[in-house]
Amino acid sequence: MAFLDEADRLKSVLRATTLCDGSRPENSGEHSWHLALYAMVLADQAGPGVSIDRVVRMLILHDLVEIDVGDVPIHSANGQAHGSAEVVAKERAAADRIFGLLPGDLGAEFRALWEEFEAAETPDAVFAKSLDRVQPVMQNLACGGGTWRTYGVTAEQLESRVGVKVARGTPGLWDWVRERTRSYFGS
Amino acid sequence: MAFLDEADRLKSVLRATTLCDGSRPENSGEHSWHLALYAMVLADQAGPGVSIDRVVRMLILHDLVEIDVGDVPIHSANGQAHGSAEVVAKERAAADRIFGLLPGDLGAEFRALWEEFEAAETPDAVFAKSLDRVQPVMQNLACGGGTWRTYGVTAEQLESRVGVKVARGTPGLWDWVRERTRSYFGS
Repeated sequence: MAFLDEADRLKSVLRATTLCDGSRPENSGEHSWHLALYAMVLADQAGPGVSIDRVVRMLILHDLVEIDVGDVPIHSANGQAHGSAEVVAKERAAADRIFGLLPGDLGAEFRALWEEFEAAETPDAVFAKSLDRVQPVMQNLACGGGTWRTYGVTAEQLESRVGVKVARGTPGLWDWVRERTRSYFGS
Repeated sequence: MAFLDEADRLKSVLRATTLCDGSRPENSGEHSWHLALYAMVLADQAGPGVSIDRVVRMLILHDLVEIDVGDVPIHSANGQAHGSAEVVAKERAAADRIFGLLPGDLGAEFRALWEEFEAAETPDAVFAKSLDRVQPVMQNLACGGGTWRTYGVTAEQLESRVGVKVARGTPGLWDWVRERTRSYFGS
């Protein structure tokens, strides 16, 4: 219960992305819920050997470290902050603290799922990562630019920072989504 | 994708319950995420035959009808509004519209999970319902009263409107939580 009360704080971690109506920034709690729903809906886009139930669990947990570290937008600092050594070290310390609030076995199980997501090597993690990258694209499309406008993102940057990762987990989906981004990027 | 964009609106449906720090009302999107995490953490409280993965899916979907109907707080209208015939009819119409945005098979699968949750008869649904009832209790405990204060709830009303449902799915958990509510109700 200490862990579940602590998790409540993820609802106060704000992302750069807004809701589809642009009314306010999205928080990482509701973002995690939306991604779980993405996994359930887009199950038919997953590659062979993907367990949607494991992907859903992974996505429910994937941002908890942001309670300590905050969200690091993919396009911030010209794309250099996300995944930097400094951020990775802080996120590991956060995982120690937050998953450490759970009983040993459960904490280790959740920690392992989070590590798997971060490493993005297993089929489940590759699919989960592609959803984590594509959902903000859909939010940006809905509100006329969103973080692309905030950070002055180009079509090439979207492709290298986002498209490559989405296409790795869901190639057909990225073709479909990229086509829709042309109305914003004019390419 | 139309369904996933529409689902975004659940993040703007406000509940009577606040975040643990009392800073603002919780929305139904982040609430659904928190419940999925509750299911993963409290799996050892589930009765025999419960599939946590199905419970998680059920909880991810369970409040989508609120996009059209809004949240109906359990203690509002002296406990009479929640589950009223009028609300049930509106929620069914909302389910027709919202799950109708999905391809046929997927829409039917999600609709069936939502119906199962609402009926609260299967072991999975009974466990899911108990989590949906206990999470607001934990939020109220964290912020010193919350909706109990708003609606002037008594210990007896908490027991009949909430405790009975929680205990049905997780008897041991309710004993533990009820004990903690004594500090507020002074009983």
